[in-house]
Amino acid sequence: MLSKNQLKYIQSLHQKKYRHQHGAFLVEGAKSVQEVLQSNFQTELVVATEAFYKENAHLTDRQRIPVEIASVADLERAGTLESNNAALAIVRTKENGPLLAEPDEIALILDDIRDPGNLGTILRIADWYGVRKILCSETTADVYNPKVISASKGSFTRVNWWYGDVTNVLSQSGGQLAVYGAFLDGADVHTQPFAKSGYLVMGNESNGIRPEVAQYVTQRVTIPRYGDAESLNVGIATAILLDNIRRANSGQ
Amino acid sequence: MLSKNQLKYIQSLHQKKYRHQHGAFLVEGAKSVQEVLQSNFQTELVVATEAFYKENAHLTDRQRIPVEIASVADLERAGTLESNNAALAIVRTKENGPLLAEPDEIALILDDIRDPGNLGTILRIADWYGVRKILCSETTADVYNPKVISASKGSFTRVNWWYGDVTNVLSQSGGQLAVYGAFLDGADVHTQPFAKSGYLVMGNESNGIRPEVAQYVTQRVTIPRYGDAESLNVGIATAILLDNIRRANSGQ
Repeated sequence: MLSKNQLKYIQSLHQKKYRHQHGAFLVEGAKSVQEVLQSNFQTELVVATEAFYKENAHLTDRQRIPVEIASVADLERAGTLESNNAALAIVRTKENGPLLAEPDEIALILDDIRDPGNLGTILRIADWYGVRKILCSETTADVYNPKVISASKGSFTRVNWWYGDVTNVLSQSGGQLAVYGAFLDGADVHTQPFAKSGYLVMGNESNGIRPEVAQYVTQRVTIPRYGDAESLNVGIATAILLDNIRRANSGQ
Repeated sequence: MLSKNQLKYIQSLHQKKYRHQHGAFLVEGAKSVQEVLQSNFQTELVVATEAFYKENAHLTDRQRIPVEIASVADLERAGTLESNNAALAIVRTKENGPLLAEPDEIALILDDIRDPGNLGTILRIADWYGVRKILCSETTADVYNPKVISASKGSFTRVNWWYGDVTNVLSQSGGQLAVYGAFLDGADVHTQPFAKSGYLVMGNESNGIRPEVAQYVTQRVTIPRYGDAESLNVGIATAILLDNIRRANSGQ
């Protein structure tokens, strides 16, 4: 059973301030908890229904992870999901170590992506397209936000991120790598060739890429429009751009 | 000022049953209301703040659409948006007239897309890629749901839809048109040629395309995966498939 203090601790992790202070975040729902238990993240505690624990005891017990059995009502009180009849995990955050695109690698740069749902979707898309590194401006949504973790559908366990001054990274790359940026007035991605190494920069939902980042973009690219919608959601745009980059890289 | 009866009427339109009964639906937020007032939809009433009305009176007055001035608090009480400091419109639903793909036209078939956010996103993507017709299975989310209208970002004014028995439509097309269906085991969309006429079928978020619809698919197609995510969201998948179809059709 969940103690009052445990409940209070878990609820504090809904907020960025306390996630930062405690160095921990929440993973919620059956599939995400199963994925995190099979990843290299370090889990502090699992709170689970009797049924979930019985089915997944092999995942917790071999790592000697403490488990508290709780009712569905307690799980939902502790966590952020509207419905959760399985489990939640309290997981240690990772160190904010530097990330750079290596040769033959495309990395993502997110310049001020504010919506947690969009960020979670982008993690999932990066994972589908084999992008393993995401560099985030400090103003980008917190990846440890429960909404991001949930929207990533487990992909947060397979993608690495770093938060910091992305202009600094780009200025230090010294123009040696291709830097593709999504703009409304760039080259058509259906005909644009793409290098196998470099960065793809995606900008803010309303304002796009900031000028201080845009100055390092070596090739502006645009998704061709065949109809009348004014814009595409940034998650959708990321998916289409990565699809075109992978296609170009595989010579199709 | 909004009367008690008006408030009650507007609130009833949050529910499908009453939208159907009254033949009306809600459009909320500045941009969506502006778009619907410039479309061929028939608007019954606009509820607006003083400021929104002053800026947009030319849109309502030339069509003699009644306007009620309301406070932000009243707008939010009447509507479904968490914040709305501009306007909402009560708009007449359209007749459910039949739709078929014409020569040189790609139309979408949605087989049991349940999430209103996904449906709204798909309307916006269809609008971007110039797809003008969406045929929906009866179990697909109601397009007049305020969440769909809101997620479509105004694209609901430029895309047409029909709800009914999609298997019937496909069986009557008699194999004369290409029917592309999104599956996990289909042909790679990066190399697959696409006809200029036909249907693209997208299936349910969890279960994909139903067997009774799948039997009419003439070409199963798949988005190639380069990483480890198990799946893509149906909105994202629709966008990538339409991007590949338009690209193939334009000979790139």
